Amino acid sequence: MTNEELYLAVALNGWKGNIERADKTFSGLSDQEVLNEIAPGKNRLIYLWGHLTATHDAMLPLLGIGQRLHPEFDVAFISNPDKTQAGIPSVELVRKAWKEVNGKLFEGFASLSAADWLKKHGAVSEEDFVKEPLRNRLAILLSRTNHLAYHLGQTALRPK
Amino acid sequence: MTNEELYLAVALNGWKGNIERADKTFSGLSDQEVLNEIAPGKNRLIYLWGHLTATHDAMLPLLGIGQRLHPEFDVAFISNPDKTQAGIPSVELVRKAWKEVNGKLFEGFASLSAADWLKKHGAVSEEDFVKEPLRNRLAILLSRTNHLAYHLGQTALRPK
Repeated sequence: MTNEELYLAVALNGWKGNIERADKTFSGLSDQEVLNEIAPGKNRLIYLWGHLTATHDAMLPLLGIGQRLHPEFDVAFISNPDKTQAGIPSVELVRKAWKEVNGKLFEGFASLSAADWLKKHGAVSEEDFVKEPLRNRLAILLSRTNHLAYHLGQTALRPK
Repeated sequence: MTNEELYLAVALNGWKGNIERADKTFSGLSDQEVLNEIAPGKNRLIYLWGHLTATHDAMLPLLGIGQRLHPEFDVAFISNPDKTQAGIPSVELVRKAWKEVNGKLFEGFASLSAADWLKKHGAVSEEDFVKEPLRNRLAILLSRTNHLAYHLGQTALRPK
């Protein structure tokens, strides 16, 4: 492996470890438990799960992997706080979308070379990228790994 | 910048962003607030702050930067749960150690080249490292960035 490939392998390991941890946490919840708040008055587990799914879904175009699969998740899980929307996707739909989105990301990751990860991500212009070369796909991977850890820390506080 | 330097720069950015976020959260707390639990019955903020400080302190030898500065933090903040130790370091001591430890890490980071980060970390043998080359210093940096995010997610739930 070249040095840049080693760098990438460590970064991908971090993502994978967090996804496995999240899988274990969320898939172990009953349909009832998923409606529990992580702490009194705070977000429900289903909100965090849907929020992570929508965030990962948005990585597809950012990384040039493909179109979003579930843009309709944003109203329920990104643009509005928990417990403000009359209808949100069911636990079943969230569970299915979570698997589907992360599966699609893993497939896409496999097709990117270490140099590809240093290309600009989908939300930065060519012009800005010349000035700010760290706004690349790798930055998306690391910040979303971080984002996942942030919410995993919260789910760890749930009533058990 | 070479590709491996770009990889490193993105990784260091992630660390720096989280440290700044933690600085802002913890330094904004009064001596009284720091004794609050993040949620009813959960860890106190001072415990998380001390826990992060001790974890970062342990990075010094892991990354070959130097000896630990505060190994005495482990009894209070790593090896035992919160609220089980009669005497723990004061808020003042934690605040001082947090700055000192992170300052020392930043200095050390500046002296490591992109290739240095791919060398083995301090808790893996030469023999094991040959078989598992991803157990390098970069893996420590990314996993500790992740660990910091995990607990930042929890501090965000504190009563405000």
